[in-house]
Amino acid sequence: MEQQKKYATTEIGPMESITRVMLKDSLGLTGAEVSFTRMPAGKAGAFIHSHKRNEEIYLFIGGKGLFWLDGEIIPVKEGTTVRVSPSCQRCLKADDAEPLSYICIQADEGSLVQSTGEDGIRSEFQPEWG
Amino acid sequence: MEQQKKYATTEIGPMESITRVMLKDSLGLTGAEVSFTRMPAGKAGAFIHSHKRNEEIYLFIGGKGLFWLDGEIIPVKEGTTVRVSPSCQRCLKADDAEPLSYICIQADEGSLVQSTGEDGIRSEFQPEWG
Repeated sequence: MEQQKKYATTEIGPMESITRVMLKDSLGLTGAEVSFTRMPAGKAGAFIHSHKRNEEIYLFIGGKGLFWLDGEIIPVKEGTTVRVSPSCQRCLKADDAEPLSYICIQADEGSLVQSTGEDGIRSEFQPEWG
Repeated sequence: MEQQKKYATTEIGPMESITRVMLKDSLGLTGAEVSFTRMPAGKAGAFIHSHKRNEEIYLFIGGKGLFWLDGEIIPVKEGTTVRVSPSCQRCLKADDAEPLSYICIQADEGSLVQSTGEDGIRSEFQPEWG
C-alpha cells in the first residue's frame, strides 16, 4: 500500500483569477472535497441539486448574490457562511452587477468525531524559522 | 431527538475584518470544523501542533507567509492550498510586512465516501428567482 505524503500543496492563483477549481484530486484529500468558484455577474447555477451523504459548507468570500434553499431565497455576500444538509435542495445566483466568489466544502454528514482542542496535540518544541 | 434545520447561516463580515472565527458551533457543522484566521504581520503560531484523527486543509486567501511542516519550510501566499496529514507537525508565520489570511478545514481522515457527481442528485426543476 502506498503511503500518502505527510503534506501536499497546490497553487490555484489569486482569488480574482479563479473560474472553478476542485482540490480533492490535486491534494489527495480524504476527509472533504473543496472547490473554489467565481460565478460571473448575472449567472445562476445550471440546476438545483441536493446530496446523498454530504453536508455542504459554503463560504462566500467576494461579491454578492442569492441562495435558493428548498424554495426560500436568502441574500449572500462576502462573509456569509452557510451549512446545507444533504437533502436540502439548493441553487445559487450571482448579482447582476458583480461576480460571486465562494468556497464549497463537501464532507460526510456526521463524520466529524472531534476537533481543535480534543483532536490537536501541542508540541513542546518551537520551530526554527531560518 | 431534535431534528437539525436543513440549513443554517451566519455572517462573519468582510474578510479584512476577521481576526479568528470558528464555524462548527454557530452553523451546527457535523462533517468538518472550519476556521478563518487573519494572522497579523510578523506574528507566528504560538506552538507547533499535530492532530490525532483530523486531516487539515489550509486555503490561503490573502497575504503571504511561511508554513513549517515537519521541519521543512515552504512559502505560502494567496492561492496556496495545503493538505496536512494528522501526524505531520505544523506551524505558520505571517510575513513581516503583511497579515496572512487563511481558512483551515478539519475533517476526519479517510471519512469522505463520495463527492460531487457520485454524491449529488440533480433536480429537474428550475428555481424561481422572484
